[in-house]
Amino acid sequence: MAEKLTKRQENYSQWYNELVVKADLAENSAVRGSMVIKPYGYSIWEKMQAALDKMFKDTGHSNAYFPLFIPKSFFSKEASHVDGFAKECAVVTHYRLKNDEVTNKIIVDPAAKLEEELIVRPTSETIIWNTYKNWIQSYRDLPILVNQWANVVRWEMRTRLFLRTAEFLWQEGHTAHATKEEAIAETEQMINVYADFAENWIGVPVIKGYKSENERFAGALDTFAIEALMQDGKALQAGTSHFLGQNFAKAFDVKFADKNGKLDYVWATSWGVSTRLMGALIMAHSDDNGLVLPPKLAPIQVVIVPIYKGQDQLDRINEKANQIKSNLEAKGISVKYDNRDTYKPGWKFAEYELKGVPVRIAMGPRDLENNTLEIARRDTLEKEIKSQDGIESYIDELLKDIQNNIYQKALKFRKENTHKADTYEEFKDIIENKGGFVLAHWDGTPETEQRIKDETKATIRVIPFDSIEEDGKCIYSGKPSKKRVLFAKAY
Amino acid sequence: MAEKLTKRQENYSQWYNELVVKADLAENSAVRGSMVIKPYGYSIWEKMQAALDKMFKDTGHSNAYFPLFIPKSFFSKEASHVDGFAKECAVVTHYRLKNDEVTNKIIVDPAAKLEEELIVRPTSETIIWNTYKNWIQSYRDLPILVNQWANVVRWEMRTRLFLRTAEFLWQEGHTAHATKEEAIAETEQMINVYADFAENWIGVPVIKGYKSENERFAGALDTFAIEALMQDGKALQAGTSHFLGQNFAKAFDVKFADKNGKLDYVWATSWGVSTRLMGALIMAHSDDNGLVLPPKLAPIQVVIVPIYKGQDQLDRINEKANQIKSNLEAKGISVKYDNRDTYKPGWKFAEYELKGVPVRIAMGPRDLENNTLEIARRDTLEKEIKSQDGIESYIDELLKDIQNNIYQKALKFRKENTHKADTYEEFKDIIENKGGFVLAHWDGTPETEQRIKDETKATIRVIPFDSIEEDGKCIYSGKPSKKRVLFAKAY
Repeated sequence: MAEKLTKRQENYSQWYNELVVKADLAENSAVRGSMVIKPYGYSIWEKMQAALDKMFKDTGHSNAYFPLFIPKSFFSKEASHVDGFAKECAVVTHYRLKNDEVTNKIIVDPAAKLEEELIVRPTSETIIWNTYKNWIQSYRDLPILVNQWANVVRWEMRTRLFLRTAEFLWQEGHTAHATKEEAIAETEQMINVYADFAENWIGVPVIKGYKSENERFAGALDTFAIEALMQDGKALQAGTSHFLGQNFAKAFDVKFADKNGKLDYVWATSWGVSTRLMGALIMAHSDDNGLVLPPKLAPIQVVIVPIYKGQDQLDRINEKANQIKSNLEAKGISVKYDNRDTYKPGWKFAEYELKGVPVRIAMGPRDLENNTLEIARRDTLEKEIKSQDGIESYIDELLKDIQNNIYQKALKFRKENTHKADTYEEFKDIIENKGGFVLAHWDGTPETEQRIKDETKATIRVIPFDSIEEDGKCIYSGKPSKKRVLFAKAY
Repeated sequence: MAEKLTKRQENYSQWYNELVVKADLAENSAVRGSMVIKPYGYSIWEKMQAALDKMFKDTGHSNAYFPLFIPKSFFSKEASHVDGFAKECAVVTHYRLKNDEVTNKIIVDPAAKLEEELIVRPTSETIIWNTYKNWIQSYRDLPILVNQWANVVRWEMRTRLFLRTAEFLWQEGHTAHATKEEAIAETEQMINVYADFAENWIGVPVIKGYKSENERFAGALDTFAIEALMQDGKALQAGTSHFLGQNFAKAFDVKFADKNGKLDYVWATSWGVSTRLMGALIMAHSDDNGLVLPPKLAPIQVVIVPIYKGQDQLDRINEKANQIKSNLEAKGISVKYDNRDTYKPGWKFAEYELKGVPVRIAMGPRDLENNTLEIARRDTLEKEIKSQDGIESYIDELLKDIQNNIYQKALKFRKENTHKADTYEEFKDIIENKGGFVLAHWDGTPETEQRIKDETKATIRVIPFDSIEEDGKCIYSGKPSKKRVLFAKAY
């Protein structure tokens, strides 16, 4: 481990950037805006994928794979969709390189120009609905419940590791239904799946709700989102689920015959989460010593570090430690025993703290004598001496306790940083000086939302599903409003 | 299920193309050369991925993710590498679309031209070695044992579903080592892993060996490959493992300090298998009725079809069938009970035959009375009546038997279709009239190999690892040769 991390209080943004790199999660690549996800970071993403994939399959979905490239003309078929994505597309125009005989350099072969340019998918609605056209004739072909794990590209100008990158990994569900009701129920089901995953796996409480028109997905009739609050008081959109109505079915002419042979357009949803969730995980829990990982997503849940002088002591500790390791693994706990002699215990302690390993066990010669162990938990940094007897059950419970504790901590933080504002002055003061979520009345117009955004950088994150009806006045226009919406500055 | 498949004898190529589509494995997309992998096909690929991923992790590898795009200049750094891939590259030249105000059509924004073009990765050696440069300083940083699951693009002109597509899915391992010996051992280990997977999971026997210079990977000092024989007598390269020497370390200036502080270039390997394995699986075992899946990779291992008249009979069969399903699932067997009333049993039988489900259980009213079941195995199409008692163990064994049987069948086929040729006339006769593998002497020169290829379309698939030393004469040039090499026409 090199120099210490910048402290969150000093510079939260720099703390995040340093942490991602130092904890071996990801780094910037030679390609502008594209990241390298390093093995340790990727192993967390794999755990996220496995948990989500199971949730998708348990709700009846199957995986499939659609092309990376989308013909340019497909984009134009759904008007608002192309508006939303045209400005940030990577475009393939040629299919060959050649050696330039004059300069002896590799150049793009001008003779190999594509007739129609191909867009590297920023999302796959268009290519998928063009495919579904051939899959759907009758109500018997519905519903189609398909998910894709894939890379997508959006040419973002300002990028940050995991939070906003030109290329990112994600999953995108694309479903087709016979009725509007069924499609809406699917849209709701998937935002609930995402909320469940965010809260019970990442340990981050989220607020579910509708997006306002301004923030809706390009081509959707309704976008549901989950919003999480980060430690710097900014919101992070962690997942979205879109009710697409019949927009894409109309754009790609996808009709089905119902039981009576009557033709109608198919109803659609799409929903996705991405490697951005890694950003949520990192920012929600970590501290000035490094990463704090939720045990359910930690690649290493327990690390055992021997403290010894000489080979004889090490041999005796090895024997005992390997036995504890096997016993823990038999309970399904992932354990690393780090007895490398190239690094000192203090270095290892700092390293595993930086990497967020939930539980550290230290074992020295005195522990051998006393049948004890030193147990340190990453979330609170507390240490205690425990008997080796029954240690497996103790650790098993401890991991559950840590998972719960970091969630409760994040929930407490969110409660303390969620405010109501009844005037625009109050609103601006909170946004500027405190940060966090602000519940305020809004007149429902895109214009007001835009003005508030221009003046304060805060946007409506969601109109919460559980927002209580109450009479109020828009903080900006003073017009009547029926419920509060959730504002924040956002990532 | 629609019309019957073309028979293999009539037109093998058409049989394959129809089978891939009709069995819901994949289909062509609107993007030239890119396929859609349908849910059923993708679920087989997922099973392949899971098995391979475990084998990679068991041999010490971790997954990571590197950028999709590679700066054009990176390609030029390793001379033979760029020669190998330049002719088939998708090139990104722009990063924005816009609305053309004159035509009101979406066009590529000429103002958004990239300074340096980006290549959609055809393989990732260059971007990865550019990254490893920052990861490697000393021997303590080695070995690096990393794998990536990703999509790659090679702009093939003639494409076929799974066998050769412009975009395909694969894994690419990229390892870095302190010594030549260690890198060679890794290269060997991974070709053995691939052979193990091909034989014990896909059920396809393979021949392991070295590639000749002509067929070597662009940038490798040595390429090891596994070659399988398809039912039409053509070979299919199913996996490759490359010893890259210090070529990429030199191209990207990646050095490490050994224990004495002496600097040297790092040694490299790379290895990969792709969705092409799906082609091997399909072609090796399937018949004129459809797919024949190895049980270990079958998404549905057992299908249960009820045969009934009226709801009362169905109710009684449902109860029993669901019980058998649970019992089988408790043994880790995947079971589908298809009691849809929208399709007749005969339709279902044909459908699951087409989809290659290894075991079909039919259950009618007489089976209820007699405590029996009709069991049909897909590989031999044999049917038998069995008692319901102990059926779970019987099916469990039957699946193992089918897995073994299709392997033995493929092995027998390969033996019957592997010939020795001692003269060029003999060689040409076999290649032209019988097909299959031909073991023949070769003088070791690229020129001779090229002439044989030009005249017969047959290439050297591998120089088998287990080729026995014997004195012979090259079938083409008559020059002396020490061992036979394996020729065939290939996919």
